[in-house]
Amino acid sequence: MTIAMALLGAGRIGKVHAQAIAGNPDARLVAVADAFPQAAQDIANQHGCAVRSIDEIADDPTVDAVIICTPTNTHADLIEQFSRKGKAIFCEKPVDLDLNRVKSCLTVAEEQGARLMLGFNRRFDPHFGAVKQAIVSGKVGTVEQITITSRDPGLPPFEYMDVSGGIFRDMTIHDFDMARFLLSEEIAAVQATASVLVDPRVADHNDFDTATVILTTESGKQCTILNSRRATYGYDQRIEVLGSSGLVAAENQRPVSIEIANEDGYTRPPLHDFFMTRYTEAYAAEIAAFVAAIRDDTAASPSGHDGMMALALAEAALKSVAEARVVRMSEII
Amino acid sequence: MTIAMALLGAGRIGKVHAQAIAGNPDARLVAVADAFPQAAQDIANQHGCAVRSIDEIADDPTVDAVIICTPTNTHADLIEQFSRKGKAIFCEKPVDLDLNRVKSCLTVAEEQGARLMLGFNRRFDPHFGAVKQAIVSGKVGTVEQITITSRDPGLPPFEYMDVSGGIFRDMTIHDFDMARFLLSEEIAAVQATASVLVDPRVADHNDFDTATVILTTESGKQCTILNSRRATYGYDQRIEVLGSSGLVAAENQRPVSIEIANEDGYTRPPLHDFFMTRYTEAYAAEIAAFVAAIRDDTAASPSGHDGMMALALAEAALKSVAEARVVRMSEII
Amino acid sequence: MTIAMALLGAGRIGKVHAQAIAGNPDARLVAVADAFPQAAQDIANQHGCAVRSIDEIADDPTVDAVIICTPTNTHADLIEQFSRKGKAIFCEKPVDLDLNRVKSCLTVAEEQGARLMLGFNRRFDPHFGAVKQAIVSGKVGTVEQITITSRDPGLPPFEYMDVSGGIFRDMTIHDFDMARFLLSEEIAAVQATASVLVDPRVADHNDFDTATVILTTESGKQCTILNSRRATYGYDQRIEVLGSSGLVAAENQRPVSIEIANEDGYTRPPLHDFFMTRYTEAYAAEIAAFVAAIRDDTAASPSGHDGMMALALAEAALKSVAEARVVRMSEII
Amino acid sequence: MTIAMALLGAGRIGKVHAQAIAGNPDARLVAVADAFPQAAQDIANQHGCAVRSIDEIADDPTVDAVIICTPTNTHADLIEQFSRKGKAIFCEKPVDLDLNRVKSCLTVAEEQGARLMLGFNRRFDPHFGAVKQAIVSGKVGTVEQITITSRDPGLPPFEYMDVSGGIFRDMTIHDFDMARFLLSEEIAAVQATASVLVDPRVADHNDFDTATVILTTESGKQCTILNSRRATYGYDQRIEVLGSSGLVAAENQRPVSIEIANEDGYTRPPLHDFFMTRYTEAYAAEIAAFVAAIRDDTAASPSGHDGMMALALAEAALKSVAEARVVRMSEII
Repeated sequence: MTIAMALLGAGRIGKVHAQAIAGNPDARLVAVADAFPQAAQDIANQHGCAVRSIDEIADDPTVDAVIICTPTNTHADLIEQFSRKGKAIFCEKPVDLDLNRVKSCLTVAEEQGARLMLGFNRRFDPHFGAVKQAIVSGKVGTVEQITITSRDPGLPPFEYMDVSGGIFRDMTIHDFDMARFLLSEEIAAVQATASVLVDPRVADHNDFDTATVILTTESGKQCTILNSRRATYGYDQRIEVLGSSGLVAAENQRPVSIEIANEDGYTRPPLHDFFMTRYTEAYAAEIAAFVAAIRDDTAASPSGHDGMMALALAEAALKSVAEARVVRMSEII
Repeated sequence: MTIAMALLGAGRIGKVHAQAIAGNPDARLVAVADAFPQAAQDIANQHGCAVRSIDEIADDPTVDAVIICTPTNTHADLIEQFSRKGKAIFCEKPVDLDLNRVKSCLTVAEEQGARLMLGFNRRFDPHFGAVKQAIVSGKVGTVEQITITSRDPGLPPFEYMDVSGGIFRDMTIHDFDMARFLLSEEIAAVQATASVLVDPRVADHNDFDTATVILTTESGKQCTILNSRRATYGYDQRIEVLGSSGLVAAENQRPVSIEIANEDGYTRPPLHDFFMTRYTEAYAAEIAAFVAAIRDDTAASPSGHDGMMALALAEAALKSVAEARVVRMSEII
Repeated sequence: MTIAMALLGAGRIGKVHAQAIAGNPDARLVAVADAFPQAAQDIANQHGCAVRSIDEIADDPTVDAVIICTPTNTHADLIEQFSRKGKAIFCEKPVDLDLNRVKSCLTVAEEQGARLMLGFNRRFDPHFGAVKQAIVSGKVGTVEQITITSRDPGLPPFEYMDVSGGIFRDMTIHDFDMARFLLSEEIAAVQATASVLVDPRVADHNDFDTATVILTTESGKQCTILNSRRATYGYDQRIEVLGSSGLVAAENQRPVSIEIANEDGYTRPPLHDFFMTRYTEAYAAEIAAFVAAIRDDTAASPSGHDGMMALALAEAALKSVAEARVVRMSEII
Repeated sequence: MTIAMALLGAGRIGKVHAQAIAGNPDARLVAVADAFPQAAQDIANQHGCAVRSIDEIADDPTVDAVIICTPTNTHADLIEQFSRKGKAIFCEKPVDLDLNRVKSCLTVAEEQGARLMLGFNRRFDPHFGAVKQAIVSGKVGTVEQITITSRDPGLPPFEYMDVSGGIFRDMTIHDFDMARFLLSEEIAAVQATASVLVDPRVADHNDFDTATVILTTESGKQCTILNSRRATYGYDQRIEVLGSSGLVAAENQRPVSIEIANEDGYTRPPLHDFFMTRYTEAYAAEIAAFVAAIRDDTAASPSGHDGMMALALAEAALKSVAEARVVRMSEII
């Protein structure tokens, strides 16, 4: 059985997913929709699928699943629409920037019994996956202290920043999900600090560019997230987990791993320049997991609930910064 | 323009090349041939191409190029056959185990003006490619001393060993080519030592399992190759180049790069288990280079001559071991 | 001119300082005092100095300087006593566990014009020193985000814990000082979380064993400290500084740096087991700096003020944990 | 019991040994001799010993042992003189540049029952020692293939080169000894290549500056030595041992181990600049081993025989280069 998939949104990440579907022996891209016809046509040409409207796709009984990578403000409506049509749904994060809208959307999806998977790609990175595996298999004992270093190479465009929901909802949200993925205990409290250090114009856009967050669980486990919008040396993505019997760490990845030594010292090239090359394997693996969940009729993970929880942590972090205090998750959700 | 390609040989490496062709926007796999019909059919099913005989492929004017990955003893004949049909030819190394047969085959190919590329995949590894680039761009000055460490995880089957031509022609041949690729000066002399340390049965098969080779150029550049058929920690593939102003090195690659620390120390997982996973990117890149050479009508590299020279170095190494002396390349070729 | 030094306290760290003095061409150990005569005698035997009482040392005009490594509760009195005698004073941290007592002691020292240096040895570690140097020389631009990972191999004895002032005053105090050393801007606010994860008995002793602290400056620079009393892999001491134009990091040190590779992977030995071997060079260098300050009549650094500030940060961290909020340093000092 | 030691030769390495004796609780430096009185006086001033002539030291019954670090051409005579006086003798390598003179000297020392230790300091490096320990304890199985990379930061002065005996006797000799130390089987054959690549004037001085040597044992174990007189990145000293069940490697050491990352990549500082700082611990440990051998009345190791064997390997390497063939050790010794 081959899963017939349609792509909603033919932008940068849409192309990545189209490629992943093409490389998956159990899936086939049958249609693509985009507000810009040429973008849709480009993908159609490369992968031999049809250009369709979103409604046509929704009404086509031969389409098994959709990949939603349209703008964020359309996600919740599309999830509801396709839930009602009985399609399996893969949606890029976040479901919505408003926590209440996320809740109402997830209620609809749940009532419809929809299979909904959120695009937290980092869970599928082989290196981070190996960290998770080391924890699960008891290699480091009980988790006690996690450090997630997550730094972008540069600021996003200000127009994007204005609709992104801010650094916590846009960037840290991946780290919040990773924290939940690795902690295996719900987060009870959040404290955060955030600054504008990279570019003063960030403040004009009501955002921060540098943040540190501490998450704690009821039992006292601690997870620190270190964010910056400027890492001159590339896309800095590291995880370190201290457990009762050891430590497991995933170091940064490089496109080329040579080293040149001379009188100035030993130099290795910079890291990957951003997520498209850093997480190539993860993007393919998350689509494979989605396809496998449909094929095997199992629950898709990360779920809509995971998406909501990551957003709630972002809300808590914002509140903590604003009120200079620890915010308990029970205040948020 | 899309290059129509046919695959001769549907074994392990044939599948790798079929995948590479599928991922290449400028190429299309149109036919596959194999002595075992089922092997050919499997590839045909996966990639939507026809199963044909070698002669049918040779006679089909719509086929632009062939990928030869049949057994070694068929390579020279196939190169001649497809040269005469005007096809571009990519052939796995070696052209033949007999140096004279290689010469006569290359003469035919040359007379026919055939575009012939040899499958020295390591030239296309991004890390080794970056080493070459560092040399070419002057980052380490004039090359003086190269060290190539190249160790297989284990012995090949003895049946394979019997037809392989021995460790120098089968395994070191890749390192000989890499030495030539990096030295940018022809090798003038070879000295080698070889032992049976891994398994005494290797001696019964008239082969060695552990070898060290020193190559020198006329100007005195030195290149050492370290080979073993047993690296318990994975497929050990390293290069280090000392130049007059610095050193450039390519370290080993790992499928997963986490590190676990506990009271026993810091442990990283073993290396890739063998060439199929270690050189994934290189296999795709060499096919891309072949396709580009056809598309752009440029010379294919590494060439048939490169294949012959690597084989000649293997002959010289064997002679050096047998006679316990330095063998000059002028004695061989 | 050779500086005549006396050692107050002949315990573990006293022996380290005695050795450092012996290796310093500008200093000479002339006397040692300890409540346990045998401990003092052992050092006297090894280094050829006299065993004296503290008062005798204080009254001896030929003694230029004292090294105080007696129990913490004697530090402030001794600083005052030796300040009044005009001796240069090197004192192990902390001056006292009570911030007010520290202040009154420093007032006396200042009134007497005493040269007082605090034993924050890590400032003299060559690797951390190189981090500082990289910052000062502009190699990473303006400091934005610092991460200090500082984990002990195991819990201290509970009797020691009871008089230590708790994890923030005993252990984190070194990290607070390092943060101040590297930030080059005063810390404005502190937020912390602390747990008992290593051993439940720690709670009975009114202490924590796992802590995470965020320090922020007025301009928004952020520094995170990660503490644990249990790192099974050795004494974990790392620093990482993100600046506007780059990152500088000091990795852990190992007594032996071999690597063994086999089918289980690549393994390096654990880290140093604790501070005595990790900071050998730092201990010698801090005494050398003290001696140089006396010889050259320059200010000793880190100063008594540095000692007070680190203690104040510990107070703030404790208050932050207790009140689940950000504590501003203006509330403390 | 404290061993009374005298130092013959107050040059650079003499100072290192004087410092090592000063730091050793079981030894005392009682006298120093040097052709340049001021050099001897400097050491005498720093360490509080007497300046004496060599003959005075030889005739002094209270002197237990001598450290010979005079010019090479005096070593053999001094060993004989002090052997006859019943002193324990530590001698810098080599005993002599002439193999026959070494043999006659060792015969005298043996007849006198002298305790003679050669200054192959690298055996006492903690990292190389850990490699040896890993082999001895079976961590890598049976040794099969060793790689010793040993590169100086630059050429020695030509005046020194003229009396050094050439690169194999002066520089590679340390690597020959290390090979013997690690192989635990006598070397049966030597093949080498040597070039002048660093500076053409080296040829005028009848020497080489770049060399590669393969040593083989009767059972087929292989050891490769890579030498160059120019490593722009510092003093390159590495060892790697492949065994039947794994690999053990000792990487290079750095005085400072920070890493700076920016848009140009990740850069670590160069290696130690030369042996004085690289082998600080080794120099102290070899003197400690010599002192312990005297104190415990055990054989000193490495022995005079070890010194002779390393020199014989140098002879064999020279002969191999000259005759372009494998030289068996039975031809030399």
